[in-house]
Amino acid sequence: MSGIADVAALAGVSKATASRALTGSGHVSQATRSRVLDAAASLGYVPSTSAVSLATGRTRNVGVVMPYVNRWFFAEVLEGIQQPLLERGLDLTLYDAKPGTEGRARIFDDFLARKRFDGLIAVGLEPEDRELQRLMQIGRPIVSVVGADEGSSVVSIDDDYAARRATEHLIALGHTDIVFLGGGVGEHWAQVDRRRLTGYEAAMAEAGLASTTRHVRSEVSIPGGYDAAVDLLGDSRTRPSALVAVCDEVAIGAIIASRRLGVPVPGALSVVGIDDHEYAEMFSLTTLQQLPRQQGAAAVELLLAHLDEPHRPPTSVQMQARLIVRSSTSALAQA
Amino acid sequence: MSGIADVAALAGVSKATASRALTGSGHVSQATRSRVLDAAASLGYVPSTSAVSLATGRTRNVGVVMPYVNRWFFAEVLEGIQQPLLERGLDLTLYDAKPGTEGRARIFDDFLARKRFDGLIAVGLEPEDRELQRLMQIGRPIVSVVGADEGSSVVSIDDDYAARRATEHLIALGHTDIVFLGGGVGEHWAQVDRRRLTGYEAAMAEAGLASTTRHVRSEVSIPGGYDAAVDLLGDSRTRPSALVAVCDEVAIGAIIASRRLGVPVPGALSVVGIDDHEYAEMFSLTTLQQLPRQQGAAAVELLLAHLDEPHRPPTSVQMQARLIVRSSTSALAQA
Repeated sequence: MSGIADVAALAGVSKATASRALTGSGHVSQATRSRVLDAAASLGYVPSTSAVSLATGRTRNVGVVMPYVNRWFFAEVLEGIQQPLLERGLDLTLYDAKPGTEGRARIFDDFLARKRFDGLIAVGLEPEDRELQRLMQIGRPIVSVVGADEGSSVVSIDDDYAARRATEHLIALGHTDIVFLGGGVGEHWAQVDRRRLTGYEAAMAEAGLASTTRHVRSEVSIPGGYDAAVDLLGDSRTRPSALVAVCDEVAIGAIIASRRLGVPVPGALSVVGIDDHEYAEMFSLTTLQQLPRQQGAAAVELLLAHLDEPHRPPTSVQMQARLIVRSSTSALAQA
Repeated sequence: MSGIADVAALAGVSKATASRALTGSGHVSQATRSRVLDAAASLGYVPSTSAVSLATGRTRNVGVVMPYVNRWFFAEVLEGIQQPLLERGLDLTLYDAKPGTEGRARIFDDFLARKRFDGLIAVGLEPEDRELQRLMQIGRPIVSVVGADEGSSVVSIDDDYAARRATEHLIALGHTDIVFLGGGVGEHWAQVDRRRLTGYEAAMAEAGLASTTRHVRSEVSIPGGYDAAVDLLGDSRTRPSALVAVCDEVAIGAIIASRRLGVPVPGALSVVGIDDHEYAEMFSLTTLQQLPRQQGAAAVELLLAHLDEPHRPPTSVQMQARLIVRSSTSALAQA
């Protein structure tokens, strides 16, 4: 069996350089790294990562905990995290922590405590008190995306602003009967959804429309928005002239329902979302754009900064959503 | 600092039992395991996993390589994999290997060669020759989902059958002008999409309809199906009476396009998909149902069997798709 000395000899570098290239620790030029990797491949040499970890005290692995992987925002953040980790030779261990499941309890009680990662990125996790306590016990840097945790670094958008801006856009178009659609179903009312509801309520109150403020609850998904909108829009007496949806998925579900019910968008109903989902363009959806891939990448940068500098104080990176006007919104038709 | 002996003493078990409970190796009852974990938590004791790995020769980690995480099928398979791994105390390291990217090259050249996992599950990977060679070099068990690799175990559905059954359903309803929609765009024409096209062609040929066989290419996504269908359905002279879509996402895109163009489904156009996507019900989509979560779970079972029994021969598990008739298909209207 070949050893590191054989790899170094074949690549024409020192053992220390070969070791750095193979473990990803310390700087090695891309050309040297390629040469060492080729030499290792041709000799069939692979370093024992367990031995590497013990020697360096680093797992070269980042844990990512998220409650969903099959929703657009979470999948996009995950892609945004994976790319810069790959570039740095770091592994990504995924913990899928759906709220209220036994699997989630095991992740907090058992998996995270094993600390098989140098640091953790928590995406939309909203830990309960007991879970938060477990996270604190880990003693590894944590960066949250869309979190509200004090004491750790956070990457997010200003949700209050996004919903406020969406609502103001409709008010500027002459709408007064504006419903906020989505969130608030079941036990787990996400904080991000509550913050958006608050932004809507503030904009309505500022425009003197507090009395017509209405929140219609729905699951936060396309089918959830569809179901709630079928119910809401079916009766023309209670139908609003405009909707602010908690996110694009709910907005898209509402547009699909409108088409099915023969309620023209934007002729009889204006709809604004928050996200700029991959389907937003297909539905001509006016929305507040956020860029979850950038949020994922920013979380990686922050985490690496904390690893380099253990006593670095927590930072909050807040990105601003941007209004994109497409044709799902229009001026209120004069009666 | 507390050691394993302190944990064992507090939990009232032997050191060997405490070690088994903490590392997940060997059998320990759930009650004992809880007691040991509580003792470890109260003492702040966590085993060094690097030391554990060196001692047991196992990483207790499964690698999952997939080209996408943000498409329904892949996200569902991932959920199906995560659940049984969690139950067994195994970590999941995710490698997001988009075709044609530099990240993918690094995964094959570098990440996989480090072998930081006991085994690998490759989902819809379709490795090129060079990549396949790298996979063989790893010398760890590999199970493919939707793969066509010889030499490793595979979990899949019979794609040929699914597309054939979808086509036969339309033929039985009196349709003859049936288009196969989707796939075949760009460099990466997935084998699964080709197999489905072949099933459609076979069913058409058997019904004496070989001369009206038509494949319209599209990206395999809802927007991809939408774009291709807008083009195809816009002209009533070339519009078919029915579509077999390569998957539900393409079928749903086509239905959204039909509604936009005022082409009633199923009145003027019948549409069948393959998947039973989470949105299928919302669009009343007739489809061939597959259950990707079950495929993910089956892949985990197979991988564990290979780990327990290193010389076990490769197995192929083929699941059958099931026709679900909703209201996106109907008998051909008599002219």
